[in-house]
Amino acid sequence: MKGLFQYNWQVRDEWFDWCLKQQPEEIEKKRSSGMESILKNLFHIVDVEVSWMYAILDKPDFTPEFSDYPSIQHIIKFSEAYRSEVESVVFHFSSTAEQKPVKTSWAEEDTYTQGDILRHLIAHEIHHIGQISVWAREMNRVPVSASYVGRQQ
Amino acid sequence: MKGLFQYNWQVRDEWFDWCLKQQPEEIEKKRSSGMESILKNLFHIVDVEVSWMYAILDKPDFTPEFSDYPSIQHIIKFSEAYRSEVESVVFHFSSTAEQKPVKTSWAEEDTYTQGDILRHLIAHEIHHIGQISVWAREMNRVPVSASYVGRQQ
Repeated sequence: MKGLFQYNWQVRDEWFDWCLKQQPEEIEKKRSSGMESILKNLFHIVDVEVSWMYAILDKPDFTPEFSDYPSIQHIIKFSEAYRSEVESVVFHFSSTAEQKPVKTSWAEEDTYTQGDILRHLIAHEIHHIGQISVWAREMNRVPVSASYVGRQQ
Repeated sequence: MKGLFQYNWQVRDEWFDWCLKQQPEEIEKKRSSGMESILKNLFHIVDVEVSWMYAILDKPDFTPEFSDYPSIQHIIKFSEAYRSEVESVVFHFSSTAEQKPVKTSWAEEDTYTQGDILRHLIAHEIHHIGQISVWAREMNRVPVSASYVGRQQ
């Protein structure tokens, strides 16, 4: 589990660096599918990760608005601000936590397990990053590598 | 690990069903990024999964050609034909297997661990499926859900 989170954070940070080198209007441009722009996909990845982690930590949910994080610099700060709390869940995850029930404010009828939530977050981020890789090619740019093996740790 | 493989196989099978309902020329159409078509992305997912699993199983690598699997029906059969061997690795994976070294025919200098290979395959499939979801929207079709939580098992 930990390895896939670290992979995702590394890939996310590489996309942040990539975005800093692009024209702002290109990464803000409305595109098909996902959250409909590179910036909005990245914001959504952080937002969803923090929301589920806060549910695991039994902290009150917050619902950040994209309009409060309108640039790549804002989203980088957003991602960094919550990293240590997110890490506290991932690095302390164990087989005991696997089946621990979790309730959320956005689906009060349902109960999730910590294990399912962590797997959901892993898949969620990779999926939306896959979408960004298509949009990068539409911009005639080389996307960040998605390979798990062979990357510099 | 097992949960994310089962998620990927379920999502893959849902995309197979989705493809069976589309015009063949739409799923064969050349697109930007990834393996450059919906069919080729799906073929690549199966090909890469089987190749790495065969390395783990210490079986001789095979290098299937896309031209031998030119339709969605061929790719479905390809995926089904190797499922039980792939499952044999995933379902028997344990903390003992995590660090087991694996050599491949395509990177003879390098040694991988079983754990890293399985994480690589999980990320690899989700990434290429994320790309397909963008292409589905380009076709004005609703993509298969990528959510890990809330899916029918």
